[in-house]
Amino acid sequence: MILDKVNSPQDLKGLPLSELNTLADEMRELIIKKVNTTGGHMGPNLGILETTIAMHYVFNSPEDKFVFDVSHQCYPHKILTGRKDGFTNPENYLKYTGYTAPEETVHDLFKVGHTSTSISLACGVAKARDLKGEKHNVIALIGDGSLTGGEALEGLNNASVLGSNLIILVNDNDMSIAENHGGIYGNLSLLRDTKGKAENNFFTSMGFEYHYVEEGNNIEKVIETLQKVKDTDHPVVVHLNTIKGHGLAVAEANKEAFHWIMPGALDEKAPAPFEENYNNITTDFILKKAAEDKTVVAITPATPGAYGFTKDFRDKLGSQYVDVGIAEEHAVAFASGLAKQGAKPILAIMSSFVQRTYDQLSQDLALNNSPIAMLVYWGGLSGADATHLGSFDMSLISNIPNITYLAPTSKEEYLAMLEWSLNQTERPVAIRVPFVPLTSTGIPDTTDYSKINKFKVEARGEKIAILGLGNFAGKAREVKEALAKHGINATLINPCFISGIDEELLESLKSNHELVITLEDGCLEGGFGEKVARFYGSSTMKVLNFGGKKEFTDRVPLNELYERYHLTTELILRDVEKALTEVVKA
Amino acid sequence: MILDKVNSPQDLKGLPLSELNTLADEMRELIIKKVNTTGGHMGPNLGILETTIAMHYVFNSPEDKFVFDVSHQCYPHKILTGRKDGFTNPENYLKYTGYTAPEETVHDLFKVGHTSTSISLACGVAKARDLKGEKHNVIALIGDGSLTGGEALEGLNNASVLGSNLIILVNDNDMSIAENHGGIYGNLSLLRDTKGKAENNFFTSMGFEYHYVEEGNNIEKVIETLQKVKDTDHPVVVHLNTIKGHGLAVAEANKEAFHWIMPGALDEKAPAPFEENYNNITTDFILKKAAEDKTVVAITPATPGAYGFTKDFRDKLGSQYVDVGIAEEHAVAFASGLAKQGAKPILAIMSSFVQRTYDQLSQDLALNNSPIAMLVYWGGLSGADATHLGSFDMSLISNIPNITYLAPTSKEEYLAMLEWSLNQTERPVAIRVPFVPLTSTGIPDTTDYSKINKFKVEARGEKIAILGLGNFAGKAREVKEALAKHGINATLINPCFISGIDEELLESLKSNHELVITLEDGCLEGGFGEKVARFYGSSTMKVLNFGGKKEFTDRVPLNELYERYHLTTELILRDVEKALTEVVKA
Repeated sequence: MILDKVNSPQDLKGLPLSELNTLADEMRELIIKKVNTTGGHMGPNLGILETTIAMHYVFNSPEDKFVFDVSHQCYPHKILTGRKDGFTNPENYLKYTGYTAPEETVHDLFKVGHTSTSISLACGVAKARDLKGEKHNVIALIGDGSLTGGEALEGLNNASVLGSNLIILVNDNDMSIAENHGGIYGNLSLLRDTKGKAENNFFTSMGFEYHYVEEGNNIEKVIETLQKVKDTDHPVVVHLNTIKGHGLAVAEANKEAFHWIMPGALDEKAPAPFEENYNNITTDFILKKAAEDKTVVAITPATPGAYGFTKDFRDKLGSQYVDVGIAEEHAVAFASGLAKQGAKPILAIMSSFVQRTYDQLSQDLALNNSPIAMLVYWGGLSGADATHLGSFDMSLISNIPNITYLAPTSKEEYLAMLEWSLNQTERPVAIRVPFVPLTSTGIPDTTDYSKINKFKVEARGEKIAILGLGNFAGKAREVKEALAKHGINATLINPCFISGIDEELLESLKSNHELVITLEDGCLEGGFGEKVARFYGSSTMKVLNFGGKKEFTDRVPLNELYERYHLTTELILRDVEKALTEVVKA
Repeated sequence: MILDKVNSPQDLKGLPLSELNTLADEMRELIIKKVNTTGGHMGPNLGILETTIAMHYVFNSPEDKFVFDVSHQCYPHKILTGRKDGFTNPENYLKYTGYTAPEETVHDLFKVGHTSTSISLACGVAKARDLKGEKHNVIALIGDGSLTGGEALEGLNNASVLGSNLIILVNDNDMSIAENHGGIYGNLSLLRDTKGKAENNFFTSMGFEYHYVEEGNNIEKVIETLQKVKDTDHPVVVHLNTIKGHGLAVAEANKEAFHWIMPGALDEKAPAPFEENYNNITTDFILKKAAEDKTVVAITPATPGAYGFTKDFRDKLGSQYVDVGIAEEHAVAFASGLAKQGAKPILAIMSSFVQRTYDQLSQDLALNNSPIAMLVYWGGLSGADATHLGSFDMSLISNIPNITYLAPTSKEEYLAMLEWSLNQTERPVAIRVPFVPLTSTGIPDTTDYSKINKFKVEARGEKIAILGLGNFAGKAREVKEALAKHGINATLINPCFISGIDEELLESLKSNHELVITLEDGCLEGGFGEKVARFYGSSTMKVLNFGGKKEFTDRVPLNELYERYHLTTELILRDVEKALTEVVKA
């Protein structure tokens, strides 16, 4: 294997082109096998393989600085920078993160996983170089799909006037995670059709010198152009026409499905049996409502697959579905505009990405009290990597005035909340789509959610009241059962509302309760429990808040997090016992 | 006066051009007099006067929908839409907000005050029209300065593929609040130079039909072009070359100074005597540090004037100052990139605008632990309009992991925190620049702020402990003095840290205190006090949190807010008395 002699980027330098091509084949095979075993990003890594080899051949990392965008295309880079054991040895398949990680190597500058950041970060790296009087190349690698994010566009506007070396590689595979959306793509298409010769050029209009590489999966051609721009004294864009999933026929043919795959996607398997889950009851709900009311419109800022918004679903909705591409800020303002003119927008967004649009939630949406339904997916503690945590959405959304943020605990509650959010015209409503297996009560929920901040008492008891929010309703029931074994008939409450508290109910608990415990599936800081703690601050009621800590966790298994945060029934009971003892002492 | 017969946009329709021009003169005079009396946005409103008349002449508001960007250029629109009494009658000068406000008239669609939102909002308005099968024009008005904000660029990318009527008026006066920054401006300049004829055109590259108006302050010429694009069935950009401050010589000559003026700016006055304030001690500090260390670099996302970063200051810093234009997301990522490569960025930002960059604070900055100093200005409760409140930054910043957010209470503390934040290399540090008159202890502060979350005990007492955060340190002292008159020797604590609590100190208070009160200058929800309430939840310590409510207040005088939130010494004492009585009862 050629790869045997490549242990650092330096080892590439002496290799003839034929061996570089063989190396690419070897690396492709490793990536396909690894990703098919562990799951992960397939298409992006195969598409950028040859360019990565060319980058390390032409430039000298770590003296020259590579900044990856999203970094879900960094596997070839990982293999070439001392981490090939994570790909050659199945036992090490999970040794390295799926993203760039400075703790793994000096060749990774930043920990990233959200899109559209590379150009701005690279501008900072380049400016630092200039201030220090150093000389080296700064190279940002960004995909065409990530170009439409506000940060990337702000970055482009500033990068072009930086006045010194900065090389932006645009990895154009004519795809985002799903298809691309927006006017920029018309221009990229024109540039590809004219082999980069069109006079009207988005990049040159922004002030960049521009180079086009027709065959972005041809190592020799990429090397040729990178050698031309190396050591440039001004900002340059290199537009690379690449093929997503290159070299794996099924991935080339099914670009969206093979962007990110589950383990075993390449193996022949029977299709998974149909199972009701929160994704498909949502899409069923939307299809039904859209058919009844032509002003219902579903919006995604890319990543439709994460919500089960399949190609079929999108096609059925037709003009009642808008994917705005990677553009969360636009998505929220767009939804607000729709709502203000009487349409009924349903905006789907991931917990981890909702933080890309705080100001629009506050100013465009909440300040204008526009009645939209925003569905927040994947919110909750998880074993995800540090860049895709769902722990912070509650603190973010629920402290913005005017937004009502709901936490359903069952299928029936979720559907009732969806229905209400779509029919009401008073306020923006966000719903935290349950991030736990679907549970059904079998009884339609007839709650009137326009009674804002009205909690539900599931069982009346005394001494201890348990508030189990959203995903943690089940955990709250377990705690109640465990307390029953200790002779305590606890009150069980389903708050339903994340963004406010039921002061009347909380006040009434004072008469026959000593302790209130709150359980929430997210970061405690700024969250739900603290609002309860503040309410009881001036009284003798004790309060224990259970939830996550303010920290970036990185692929820590959920069970370990539950131990760490005292979120097991056993540890909760231990803390309760301690607090009650203190009450007795007092 | 022509204006006498113009009470609604309809009244413009019959007027001959000569009368429209006279009307413009009359309106200009009113705006100049009003703004010079009350203070406010001068240049933007004078620059857009003629275009506004043309807009209302050609289109039919409110059937046709106008969406203003930032809306600090909406005074002429206000005059023409039934609100001229706010300009003709000095007694009504404060009757209307300085921004668009749907509660004032059906001609205003949105409440806005942050930039770069109009295109996305207008896309929503247009899409709602299409879903409902209606026909009317949707017109977004945006200034060249606002074009570089991520939301505007995301909006442009989506607007061009909307597939139906949308007219974007680009009001190009070749200025942001200060000068423009970025590659887009090179293209705008080329378009002006070529009278819109250049082949390489940012807007057409994005997919728009493009029209250029050479004389954007010529009513006739603007009308001519607007009539051409009216009722278009696809997205169109009209690029208007206008003059900021048009018709007022001193404003035309001093565009930055006359963007927003203080009352009486046009009257001859002696210059204000030099007075030490937090702005000028900051600029002095930065100049000194930049001279000592060439890697120190000050960054602003536009609005340098708000921090006292004058032209002279900026010129002195030279390449050690970067205004990235309206691009808060880029600013934070850029600073992170700089810091990671060993430079020392100082990023200045307004409290109200920090919310435009949450994801970058979290992912680009905090997750990477990049050591920057971020100065947050204008944070605190205020009588500002609803779009410029400084109440939410504490909840936003302090619940992101890894960022240390500091609240200085005096000149000496502020300087010591600045010094520390710039010298340390461990973490991102944010400092809430005091939003109160400067106070000086006269004693240099030698605190070691690397002892994270270490509160300062200013005076040891018993029974009650008062935590007075940042701006409210003075208020805390007043409460202590008032309690002394009631025979209570309260403990006085200056927390210094917003983003965490001193658990050891709080624990120690339990031995001889019954009540802890917290005072913070911002929204309580998600803020500092709730962290203290949570800490004491399981103990017998009482906690009272004082601060703002989660609400958008709109030009409510500060004293009224203090009454509403119980932030006067008298009301605080009353609540304290009540809480202590409850303790006795318990």
